[in-house]
Amino acid sequence: MANELEIEKEIVAQGDLVRKLKGDASASEDMKKEAIEKLLRLKLTYKEITGKEYAAPGGRQQKEKKPAAEKKQDKKAEPKADGKKQTKLGIEISKDENYSEWYSQVITKAEMIEYYDVSGCYVLRPWSYAIWEGIQAWFDSGIKKLGVKNCYFPMFVSNAALEREKTHIADFAPEVAWVTRAGSSEMAEPIAIRPTSETVMYPSYKKWVQSHRDLPIKLNQWCNVVRWEFKHPTPFLRTREFLWQEGHTAFATPEEAVREVFQILDLYAGVYTDLLAIPIVKGRKSEKEKFAGGDFTTTVEAYVPCNGRGIQGATSHHLGQNFSKMFDISFEDPNTGGKAYAWQNSWGLSTRTIGAMVMIHADDSGLVLPPRVAAIQAIILPVGITAQTTEEQRKHLMDSADELAKILVDADVRAEADLRDNYSPGWKFNHWELKGVPIRIEIGPKDLAADQVTAVLRYNGKKMAIKRADLVNEIKRLLEVIHEEMYNKVLTARDAHMKVCYDFEEFKQLLDEKFILLSPFCGEIACEDEIKKASTRDDAEAGAAQMGAKTLCIPLEQPKETLPEKCLFPACKNKAKFFALFGRSY
Amino acid sequence: MANELEIEKEIVAQGDLVRKLKGDASASEDMKKEAIEKLLRLKLTYKEITGKEYAAPGGRQQKEKKPAAEKKQDKKAEPKADGKKQTKLGIEISKDENYSEWYSQVITKAEMIEYYDVSGCYVLRPWSYAIWEGIQAWFDSGIKKLGVKNCYFPMFVSNAALEREKTHIADFAPEVAWVTRAGSSEMAEPIAIRPTSETVMYPSYKKWVQSHRDLPIKLNQWCNVVRWEFKHPTPFLRTREFLWQEGHTAFATPEEAVREVFQILDLYAGVYTDLLAIPIVKGRKSEKEKFAGGDFTTTVEAYVPCNGRGIQGATSHHLGQNFSKMFDISFEDPNTGGKAYAWQNSWGLSTRTIGAMVMIHADDSGLVLPPRVAAIQAIILPVGITAQTTEEQRKHLMDSADELAKILVDADVRAEADLRDNYSPGWKFNHWELKGVPIRIEIGPKDLAADQVTAVLRYNGKKMAIKRADLVNEIKRLLEVIHEEMYNKVLTARDAHMKVCYDFEEFKQLLDEKFILLSPFCGEIACEDEIKKASTRDDAEAGAAQMGAKTLCIPLEQPKETLPEKCLFPACKNKAKFFALFGRSY
Repeated sequence: MANELEIEKEIVAQGDLVRKLKGDASASEDMKKEAIEKLLRLKLTYKEITGKEYAAPGGRQQKEKKPAAEKKQDKKAEPKADGKKQTKLGIEISKDENYSEWYSQVITKAEMIEYYDVSGCYVLRPWSYAIWEGIQAWFDSGIKKLGVKNCYFPMFVSNAALEREKTHIADFAPEVAWVTRAGSSEMAEPIAIRPTSETVMYPSYKKWVQSHRDLPIKLNQWCNVVRWEFKHPTPFLRTREFLWQEGHTAFATPEEAVREVFQILDLYAGVYTDLLAIPIVKGRKSEKEKFAGGDFTTTVEAYVPCNGRGIQGATSHHLGQNFSKMFDISFEDPNTGGKAYAWQNSWGLSTRTIGAMVMIHADDSGLVLPPRVAAIQAIILPVGITAQTTEEQRKHLMDSADELAKILVDADVRAEADLRDNYSPGWKFNHWELKGVPIRIEIGPKDLAADQVTAVLRYNGKKMAIKRADLVNEIKRLLEVIHEEMYNKVLTARDAHMKVCYDFEEFKQLLDEKFILLSPFCGEIACEDEIKKASTRDDAEAGAAQMGAKTLCIPLEQPKETLPEKCLFPACKNKAKFFALFGRSY
Repeated sequence: MANELEIEKEIVAQGDLVRKLKGDASASEDMKKEAIEKLLRLKLTYKEITGKEYAAPGGRQQKEKKPAAEKKQDKKAEPKADGKKQTKLGIEISKDENYSEWYSQVITKAEMIEYYDVSGCYVLRPWSYAIWEGIQAWFDSGIKKLGVKNCYFPMFVSNAALEREKTHIADFAPEVAWVTRAGSSEMAEPIAIRPTSETVMYPSYKKWVQSHRDLPIKLNQWCNVVRWEFKHPTPFLRTREFLWQEGHTAFATPEEAVREVFQILDLYAGVYTDLLAIPIVKGRKSEKEKFAGGDFTTTVEAYVPCNGRGIQGATSHHLGQNFSKMFDISFEDPNTGGKAYAWQNSWGLSTRTIGAMVMIHADDSGLVLPPRVAAIQAIILPVGITAQTTEEQRKHLMDSADELAKILVDADVRAEADLRDNYSPGWKFNHWELKGVPIRIEIGPKDLAADQVTAVLRYNGKKMAIKRADLVNEIKRLLEVIHEEMYNKVLTARDAHMKVCYDFEEFKQLLDEKFILLSPFCGEIACEDEIKKASTRDDAEAGAAQMGAKTLCIPLEQPKETLPEKCLFPACKNKAKFFALFGRSY
C-alpha cells in the first residue's frame, strides 16, 4: 500500500494529460483513446490496491499515508504494569469490507511479510518462508523421481543471449532490470538480471547436446528472478523480485517432451490440492495468454471466492523447437542422418502460491494455514493459571504442556508449546489464531485432572476434548480432516460460481456476481481482446471500474455439454473450438 | 581462463604506463611506485591464473586463446563405427605441472562447471550442485537445532540503507553492482545488489526489536550475492555471483552472541571435517583481515597441499553493537531501564567450499569426491561383454548390475548402474574416475560365477573382491574408511607443512617450500602489512613472482611452545601477543 500515493499521483498526471489532449486539435484520436484507456487502467489498479474507487481529492492535497498495518507496527507496544504486552493484534477490517487492506494486515500481522524500502520487494519472514520450504521439499522430491536434477545458472544475462529469441524477449524486455555499473565504473556492456532463464541456460544446452544420446537433459533450479513491473506490486502476487523453481528440459522426441509437460502439471496440481488444500482446474492457455516463444502452455488455475477472480497457479510450457532452433540445440537424427532439433519444455512455480493460499483460506481473524504446510501444526498453551495457582501447580502445567509437545513432535507432528509467561493466554489465543495454526491445544488444571486436553480448530473454531491416551492419533486424524474440509469448502464455493454460459450478456452479468465461466470460444487472440474490452466495466465515472474477463485456461476436462457452433462473443464469426474458462483474474 | 587474454592486455597496458611514467619528469615517485606495484600485482594474478610466469609476447601479437578444456568441448565427439563414443576424456596436464590449467580441466571435464559468457559467472552443473545440496542439508539441520529459522530478504538494497554503516560499506563499495535501468527507463535512484545482507536485514530487525523479550532473533537465508571483483575470477573460488548462506542473529547480551559465534564455527568446521574430509584450523582473524564493521571474526582455515596455500573456509563474525547502533536495534534494558543495543552476529559459508574440495582432493585423473557429499557413492558397471557373449548372458549381467544398484539404494547408499551400451567399459571407467565417484563396482561373467563383485576405490586405486552376501555392509564400511583416509592424507600433508617459526628469514624460505607458519605476532595492521610486503617475492624480472604472506588466523588452540616476547617481523618493536598462522593464501 506504500504505493497508493504513487498511483494517485499517476492518476492525477494522466487525468491532466487526457484533458490536455482533449483540448489539443493536433492530437490524434488514437492518442486520446490510448490516454483515456491508460487512465482507466490506472483507476482499476487503484481499486485493486485500495479496495475503493478512485475519487479525485479536493484541491489535490495529498498526505503521505502509511498503510495501517505499518503504522501500527512502528508504534512500540506499551508493556502493562505486570510486564504483559498489550498490543492490538487482530485484523481490524473484514475481508469483504476492504479486501486489499485486509490482505495487507493478514500478511503483516501474521508475520509473513515485512515491508521493505525498495518498491515491489518484500521480506519473506520465517512464517511464510517455511511454507515455501514445505512446497520445495514436496515438489523437489517429485521432480527428482522424474529424473530431474538441480543445478544453478548465473543470474546475469548478456544482452546478446537475452535477445536471441525475439518473441520471448519482446514479452520480457519492458520488465528487465539492467546492471550498468560496478563500484564506481560504468560497465562496457549493461548486463541483464534474469526474468526467467531460457536464454541463460540454452547456450549451455547447445554445448551439451552432441548426439541424441545426450538427451534428455532435465534440469531445475530454485532461484530468484526479477521482473521490474510497473503495475502496482502486491506481496507474493506481483513482486519485482520473487523466488521460484524453473525446470528446463530437452528431449529427442516431441512425445517425450509433451508427456513431461503433463507430468509436471500434475505435480503442480498436487502442490495446490495436496499441500495447500486448494482445488484447481488444469488446462491449456489460449494463444493470447501462452508463454511467448513456446508452442503451448499448460496451467493450473485456482478460484478466489471472496472476489470471484481466477489466479494462475503455475505453468508448464512446451517450447517445441522454437528455442532449440534459435540456440542450435541439435543432434544428428539417428534415423535420417539429418540435423534434428531438440524438443524443449520449461516450467515454473513461484512464491505466488503463498499469496493464493492467503487469499483463499485466510479469514477475518487472520491466516488459516493448511496443515501440511504449516510450520506449526499444533500449538500447546497452558491455561487457567490464576493468582490462586501455586508455583507447584503452575510448574506442573508448564511441564505437562512441554511434555505434550514432545510427544507430538516424536510422532512427527510439528507441535510447539508456548510457555512464555509474559503474555496472557488471551494474547496467545489471538496471536496463534492470527498466525493460522491449524490446531490450538489448551491444557488447564481441569484438563489435567480429567487426563485430557482441549483442542480448538482454527478453520472452523470447533472445540473438543481429547483424552491424553488418544492424543497422537486424534491430532494426526484431525490434521487430515482439516485438510480435507478446507479443500472441500473452497471447492464448494468455486463450484457454486463456475458455470457453463453461452450468452454474452449473461456472461457479463455473472462476472459481476463473482463467477468464472465456461464458454464456447474460437480461440483467436483478436476475439479474446474483444471479450476483454466488452466485459470491462468502464463506468469509471459512476465509480465502479472492473477489469475485463480473460481466459484462465482451456480446461483439459471439457464440460459434458455439447459445444455449440457459435463463439461466445456475439460479433465473432469464427466457430467455437472448445469451452474456455473465463474470468476476472490476477 | 577465458580471461587470460584480458589480463595479458592489462599487463601490456600497465607496462606501457610504467614506461611512460618513468620517462615523465612531472610524474611523482608515488605515482611511479603505485604503477609498478600494480604491474607486479597483475603479473602475480597472471601466474595464479595460468600457472606460469608472464613473458612479454614477441612483438605483442596475441591470439584469442580458448582454454584447452573449452576447446575440447566445442569439438563434437566423433562416434566410432560401432556407435561407441570416442572422446578424449582424461585430464591432459598434471596438478604439479600447471595447477591452474589442471583445475580448469578437472571442473569442466568432471561436469561440475560450464563456462559462461558473463565474466566471473559460471554454471553450477548438477554434479557440483549436488555437493552444495549435501552441505545445505547438513548445515541447515545443524542451525535449525540451534533455533535458527530460514527466511528470504530482497536482493536489492537502497543506497541509503547500504551506506548506513561506514566501515562496512567502505569495504564493499568498490565491488557493488548497481541496477540503474528497468526496461528502457532510467531509475530515479540506482539500486544495489546485495554483496551481503547486513544492511538489507537490519532495518527490519530494528522494527522487530521492541523489548528484550523480542530477542534473540536468529535468521538465516540461502541465497545468491554479488561482488563485482576486478581480480581474475576462478570458478568456485572467486566469482562475481556466488551462492551462500548468511545467518544474522541478534541477542540481548554479548555472552549469548559470543557463544553462538563459536557454535556456528563448530558447524563450519564440521562441514569441512565431517563432510568434505578436509582438516581445518579454527581461529580468529587478525585486525587486518576481520570483517569490516564487526568486533571480531572467527574462521576455519584449510591448507592446499599442492601449492602450500591457505584457504579461508567460512567465517562467523561477532558484530558487537556496531550495527545495532547504526540501525537502532535497541530495547529498554530490563535491569537499568536505559536504552540498550542488541549484540549481533553474522556468519556465512559459500560455494567456495566446493572449490576447496576440488583443489585439495582432486588428482591427475580428475575429481576425487569425499563419500558423504558424492551424488553417486558407488557406480556399478557391467564388464566383460565380448563378441562371444550371448544375448542371454548380456541380459543377465545387465540385470545383475541393475539389481545390485537397487539393493544398495535400498540400504541408503547412493548407487547407480551405468547400463549404457553405447559406451565401452574403458570409457566408463575413465568417465566415472574423472567424476570422482568414490567406489566403482565392476560385475563381469567371472564375478557372477564367483558370486562376487570387484570394487575399485577412486582415492587410492585399490581393487578388491567383495562377496555378494557382504555387499551392503562392505560398501558402507568402505565409504567410511575412504572418508577417514582421505581426511588423514590431507592432515598428514598439512602437518608436514605447518611449523612454528620465529625467524623471518626462515619464514620466507619455508613459505617458498609450501609451508604455513605459526609465528609470534603483535597483531598490528601496520606490522601485518610489512610482513606481507617483505615476504612478497617481487623478483618479477627473474620470473618468479610470489604473493606475500598474510595471517590466515590466530588459532584458537595455540601452539604448546612458549610465546616469545618478540614479534616475527624483525623491525617490529611491539610485543608478540599470540602465535598467528601465516601463509600464502587464496
